[in-house]
Amino acid sequence: MDHIPKNHPRAESLRIRQRLVDGYDDGLVAREGLIAHGRGEAFDYILGERTTRLAQRSIKAAAAALLLARNPVISVNGNLAALCARQTVRLAAASHSSLEVNLFYDSPARRRKIASKLESAGAKRVLGHRRADQTELPGLGSQRRIVDKRGIAMADAVLVALEDGDRTQALAKDGRRVIAIDLNPLSRTARTADITIVDNAVRAMVRLAAQCIELAGKKESGLRRITDSYDNAATLGSHIEEIAKYLERAARNA
Amino acid sequence: MDHIPKNHPRAESLRIRQRLVDGYDDGLVAREGLIAHGRGEAFDYILGERTTRLAQRSIKAAAAALLLARNPVISVNGNLAALCARQTVRLAAASHSSLEVNLFYDSPARRRKIASKLESAGAKRVLGHRRADQTELPGLGSQRRIVDKRGIAMADAVLVALEDGDRTQALAKDGRRVIAIDLNPLSRTARTADITIVDNAVRAMVRLAAQCIELAGKKESGLRRITDSYDNAATLGSHIEEIAKYLERAARNA
Repeated sequence: MDHIPKNHPRAESLRIRQRLVDGYDDGLVAREGLIAHGRGEAFDYILGERTTRLAQRSIKAAAAALLLARNPVISVNGNLAALCARQTVRLAAASHSSLEVNLFYDSPARRRKIASKLESAGAKRVLGHRRADQTELPGLGSQRRIVDKRGIAMADAVLVALEDGDRTQALAKDGRRVIAIDLNPLSRTARTADITIVDNAVRAMVRLAAQCIELAGKKESGLRRITDSYDNAATLGSHIEEIAKYLERAARNA
Repeated sequence: MDHIPKNHPRAESLRIRQRLVDGYDDGLVAREGLIAHGRGEAFDYILGERTTRLAQRSIKAAAAALLLARNPVISVNGNLAALCARQTVRLAAASHSSLEVNLFYDSPARRRKIASKLESAGAKRVLGHRRADQTELPGLGSQRRIVDKRGIAMADAVLVALEDGDRTQALAKDGRRVIAIDLNPLSRTARTADITIVDNAVRAMVRLAAQCIELAGKKESGLRRITDSYDNAATLGSHIEEIAKYLERAARNA
């Protein structure tokens, strides 16, 4: 394979892409996960590849929701592990969340590899990779319904990143508070979640952990005020409007 | 691997994705090509997954340009071969173009596989996969400058689909008329090409072949009127505005 030309104007994007490709070679990422990453790249591009003020508002609500939860769980798939295992482990610590491996294209070998990757990044305990601990989430077909008894099965809040719409809906219908990180503000996951952070997971994980640390000393009533005043549908609408404005500026400058 | 659930709302998109994944398993598609496909999926999504009237206008200009060219060449990479080999071969016949394999992530084995795929789809002659026929395009680093002596090296018009911006620029600077198929109207490829078809390659190839057949009997002066009256920058600007409007409607309905 060719190396990334240093003077290529999209070298940074190509380097992040390389992390995914490395993750694929290490058996963490599914082939379909490479394609899904590309979708994210495109939406990040039209967001201006930055954490917007709107996203920061969602991050604050998400941090409050994680701190309010009794059993928060971070659902980890191959892409998330390949892109930001360390940041994900740090967020789990900062928000007292469990980490559970959960895959769209299931494979026991890949589950184990993702768990190892999280452990190498400092995780003390990773759920979702032992067959004995598996149970089922209602309302989902095929392998995708499998969750961990000690994790998502008993979670009151679940953070999903780069997640499929079906599973997000199943979690929401089953009464969990769902926090999603999704670059596409039009996706079913974005619309179904209670709090959607429209941002690149790599950037969002770091900021979300920082926000959890900042809010850690706050009283429950204060945290509740943050989540109660957050309107996900309105925030998503504003995100879409911002993208439209960004594109209109780009069209004028084209 | 899991099968695609039949009732999944994005089953069609997942099926096309599956073709890419199959192309990857067959050695046609690079891992990076899977990611690039995902970028295309996202832009197709915000275009409404249809060939717009604007795209149809570019397709007409592209057909005229191909028919006007003395040595038109269609540059074929792994994604294009995996997604629409047959349609690409049909376009080559309808436009009297040569087919040349040209890769961003070069590999002689992959070149040969792509050539075989095109031959199985009915191509009589495929360039770009014999070392003896290789020469270099000026202004490009690394392996990406290699082109076929009998193909792109002597082409006056080159059709690139799903192409990198660097190579598009090198072709344009070297005086070739460049026709690009690119779902991202903001990309360097889109902005650098003489005629950019902002559409999914799978759809565009079919329509472009049909347009070539329709225009085949037209006089050179008539074809020239079509290309002369086409304004690529204005068309791209209108595309971006259409996407912005589509998003604004989506925001209102969110």
